[in-house]
Amino acid sequence: MTTTAAQGRPGSRLRLKTPASIDIFTRILTHGPIGRIDVGRQTGLSQAAVTKAVAPLVAEGFIQVAGELPAGLSPGRPVYPLTVVPDALLVLGIKVNVDEVIGVATGMTADIRHTVHLPLADTALESVLDAVEEVAGRLTAALGDDVDRLVGIGVSVSGDVDTDGGVVRDSPLLGWSGVPLARLLTERLGRPVMIDNDVRALTIAEHWFGVGVDSRSFAIVTIGRGIGCGLFLNGDVVAGSHGVAGEIGHLPLASMDAVCVCGRHGCVEAVASSSAILRAVRAASGNDALEFADAAELARAGDRAAVAAFDRAGTAIGAALAVVANLTGPDTVLVAGEGMRDFELYESRIRDVFTAHAFGAAVDCTIITREHTFDDWARGAAASVIRATVRQTFPT
Amino acid sequence: MTTTAAQGRPGSRLRLKTPASIDIFTRILTHGPIGRIDVGRQTGLSQAAVTKAVAPLVAEGFIQVAGELPAGLSPGRPVYPLTVVPDALLVLGIKVNVDEVIGVATGMTADIRHTVHLPLADTALESVLDAVEEVAGRLTAALGDDVDRLVGIGVSVSGDVDTDGGVVRDSPLLGWSGVPLARLLTERLGRPVMIDNDVRALTIAEHWFGVGVDSRSFAIVTIGRGIGCGLFLNGDVVAGSHGVAGEIGHLPLASMDAVCVCGRHGCVEAVASSSAILRAVRAASGNDALEFADAAELARAGDRAAVAAFDRAGTAIGAALAVVANLTGPDTVLVAGEGMRDFELYESRIRDVFTAHAFGAAVDCTIITREHTFDDWARGAAASVIRATVRQTFPT
Repeated sequence: MTTTAAQGRPGSRLRLKTPASIDIFTRILTHGPIGRIDVGRQTGLSQAAVTKAVAPLVAEGFIQVAGELPAGLSPGRPVYPLTVVPDALLVLGIKVNVDEVIGVATGMTADIRHTVHLPLADTALESVLDAVEEVAGRLTAALGDDVDRLVGIGVSVSGDVDTDGGVVRDSPLLGWSGVPLARLLTERLGRPVMIDNDVRALTIAEHWFGVGVDSRSFAIVTIGRGIGCGLFLNGDVVAGSHGVAGEIGHLPLASMDAVCVCGRHGCVEAVASSSAILRAVRAASGNDALEFADAAELARAGDRAAVAAFDRAGTAIGAALAVVANLTGPDTVLVAGEGMRDFELYESRIRDVFTAHAFGAAVDCTIITREHTFDDWARGAAASVIRATVRQTFPT
Repeated sequence: MTTTAAQGRPGSRLRLKTPASIDIFTRILTHGPIGRIDVGRQTGLSQAAVTKAVAPLVAEGFIQVAGELPAGLSPGRPVYPLTVVPDALLVLGIKVNVDEVIGVATGMTADIRHTVHLPLADTALESVLDAVEEVAGRLTAALGDDVDRLVGIGVSVSGDVDTDGGVVRDSPLLGWSGVPLARLLTERLGRPVMIDNDVRALTIAEHWFGVGVDSRSFAIVTIGRGIGCGLFLNGDVVAGSHGVAGEIGHLPLASMDAVCVCGRHGCVEAVASSSAILRAVRAASGNDALEFADAAELARAGDRAAVAAFDRAGTAIGAALAVVANLTGPDTVLVAGEGMRDFELYESRIRDVFTAHAFGAAVDCTIITREHTFDDWARGAAASVIRATVRQTFPT
């Protein structure tokens, strides 16, 4: 289906025919500018193999050689660093939140060119399809003539998402199950659409274009409306054999009295999602008109019930971080998500509980935090399409 | 240090100089007999590369060509399947339990040739060093003249084990911390010794020579004195950036009232290890002379406290299985360990709790069980040495 990218530009499809050429292109994409010698060293391939793979990609305009000097004028050994041409292909990444759809248009390096935010009145399927269509339409309009280089569109949602089958199997936050979202959107938009779990997509973006570029292993834990996790281990993002991985939001780490929106008992999200915190503070105050910002203000002011609600959340999140560290042993855990806005309300509890339950050297796992932007999520959906395009697995 | 394998047989060291040759040898080792065409297809390497890598290994006696037919007499296309020569190199694998040391001598395919079991009076370091020396001595004696092909010795223990540094950083079951076990044993035994976490070693054995050979991803969960887990994801065993991974025994999934031997609260092992179950049954019965077999008999007879103790254990183990499935998404989980002897006492509770907490398609993760033999553990330690030898990372 990536052939649609060739509309009006025959030959512009990115063709990588062997595992070696995929490795080489990936290395240049994620580590460029990089010399041929380093590409060979890092991929374990010969110089000859690198040169052979790179030549047609340069000819087709996917890779450029920077700073090439005529051999006779070279002041020393010429390096001819390689970079991917960001403009060669474009993608859209769209993230569906419960109250907003966010889209970005990016180049091959997930560099954001345009951004669109659109409020979402409800999460009914038709409402979401309409909103995604609107966002995609505004982004393609913004691309102008460049739209002929648009490879496809990635859409990410939270929950159990079957990327290969194109189906959202179960998304408690959206209230969806068994939704063939990729097909519905491909029909609506007239362009190839792939779907992915939102945190997995974010992890792909961090792996190829973010904190994970040189990391041996890392995890991302997102806090906010949902509590999610993406894992990068043994050289790749953990996708889950059955399509599920990183689902820390529903690990049974909270009290079995706590009932989750998914219907299970004891889930992390049942006490640690922003809506669970708000529910607890509303119940304690008897004020159902409170918003999350009000609950955070109460906690800052020392309100006992509000402090207790954030403590409960921090306890569950800290335990979840310890689970990630003890079980999967990442070098680094990046904590992100919209919950970062009020992170000081959970942070000490999260770190204390993590330290209490981290086993042995797992306590050496570095926990770093990052300011949240919703655009990151949409960029993740774009990165998911970029990766599938490079790996020649973009769903057809 | 693998040069010691060459004692008396100059040239017998397994030299694999490139990542490609390691891939090719590994494929033949784990999938032989296998034709050159399939080796090329499965490794993504050219026929020429395969032939070039295989030739010296055949000449050196590490790989043999089975059923080679003179081309003129071939009834069809000759296949010439390749296998590793199991006798080419030998290793010892030794597992240290709290009350027993078990050792095996194996060939390159982790095929067990000799087995030694030795009771252990206590887990004091000197007692364990003496016992390992005794077991290694009996195994090398059993090897006779073949001992000149002995590459090295793998020793596995439970806990946080730093394989690269050769240090048992923390083993609550043995009561050890910061023990430079590899160096101490290398000095004692006069041969290279590498150490590994016991479950990680078992996972390596299953990955290369067991249920995991053709699996995309799998987990092993062991129940018994400890509750352990090994993970195989994205093409390799998960080792843990800081040396810790798969530590499900200390995930905070039990009641915070339960105190673990490691000192933490709420660990799975605090209610689910065989000693925790026994402790609960002894406390309820007031009979401190009960053994684990007695506790199991009481549960079979319907004794309320004994049934409750196994239920508590099954609840924690089932939750731990759900954590493994939700977080890492393996295709299959193999449940093993000495706890399998009484598995019917936990099984329905384990499966019910797993199903209750498995998120979405994670419930499709296949849970299989296997009869336990302690020799499997020792074979794991041997497989760990075999893998390090092939990967040219055997610690020096």
